[in-house]
Amino acid sequence: MKKKVDFPVSNARRYLEPGPIVLVSSAHRAATNIMTMGWHTIMEFTPSLLGCVIAGGNHSFAMIRGSGECVVNLPTLDMTHTVVGVGNTSGADIDKFAHFGLTAAPAERVSAPIVAECHAHFECRLYDDALVDPYNFFIFEIVAARVATRPKHPRTLHYTGEGVFMVAGEVISRRRGFLPGRL
Amino acid sequence: MKKKVDFPVSNARRYLEPGPIVLVSSAHRAATNIMTMGWHTIMEFTPSLLGCVIAGGNHSFAMIRGSGECVVNLPTLDMTHTVVGVGNTSGADIDKFAHFGLTAAPAERVSAPIVAECHAHFECRLYDDALVDPYNFFIFEIVAARVATRPKHPRTLHYTGEGVFMVAGEVISRRRGFLPGRL
Repeated sequence: MKKKVDFPVSNARRYLEPGPIVLVSSAHRAATNIMTMGWHTIMEFTPSLLGCVIAGGNHSFAMIRGSGECVVNLPTLDMTHTVVGVGNTSGADIDKFAHFGLTAAPAERVSAPIVAECHAHFECRLYDDALVDPYNFFIFEIVAARVATRPKHPRTLHYTGEGVFMVAGEVISRRRGFLPGRL
Repeated sequence: MKKKVDFPVSNARRYLEPGPIVLVSSAHRAATNIMTMGWHTIMEFTPSLLGCVIAGGNHSFAMIRGSGECVVNLPTLDMTHTVVGVGNTSGADIDKFAHFGLTAAPAERVSAPIVAECHAHFECRLYDDALVDPYNFFIFEIVAARVATRPKHPRTLHYTGEGVFMVAGEVISRRRGFLPGRL
């Protein structure tokens, strides 16, 4: 496994604001599951808030609502086959960790496992469920984060629908064009 | 200007789910403005819902809350200089359309103008303001959309903070790996 280090939760945007597809792992009543998720947004730096849609039809929905926890894991381009597989199977039918040869490792602050093969992990606790009933929209607080030290700029998958992903990886810096308070 | 065509609002995810930085244009009481936005997520296909954070410190906040409308415009890599400029100036000080040489063209169903140089435009009406006070989180309905016909896969900017953008453009299709209902 890649070497990973703690990462400040207030800077989760570094990995999530670019909009990658993520793998959401959960645990509830001795079962675990993994789902793909593309509908998410950072909502605040401190507390570190992440809003996301988890459709009620997902096997993970009840597990996450029931446990109030999940881990948002960042897969990279080399995991494309796994991402597609996770997104096209149901935890009602298979054990996704076993089926896809993924490693369920302990998280630091939540009971849900991390998907150890991923580049980064954001441990989440349900923070506000006001919009869960009307929109399936969960607001989580990211309470711990760990990221791999290499590569510095992993290539990530960004879903467009219709089975097509955009790939992001090249980075460009315009830091000198920013005001200090606008970074 | 690029040739543009109407696009089904229920498929706005095609352009927004990958998580690009967008330019949000607004109009209120004879003034217009443009801001950059990276904290957004698709929330539903039909109605076509987009959730996003517009911080209260933005000059656009009161304009969008007051008018209940905006246009979410998709800039491409060639507009990087403009994106950085728009994000590091305030509509309280300058007319951003004039200052950056951008074209405010009429939208189809909202009073806010589009930024005509962008690749795509999503016209938005405020749909639910329940989370505006606690989180500055607006839920808009996309009521009209237009996109450029070329290029088919524009290169887009994905913000990471610290003045650094990821660039997405390369696409890979895994359509054959998807179940029909999971696309």
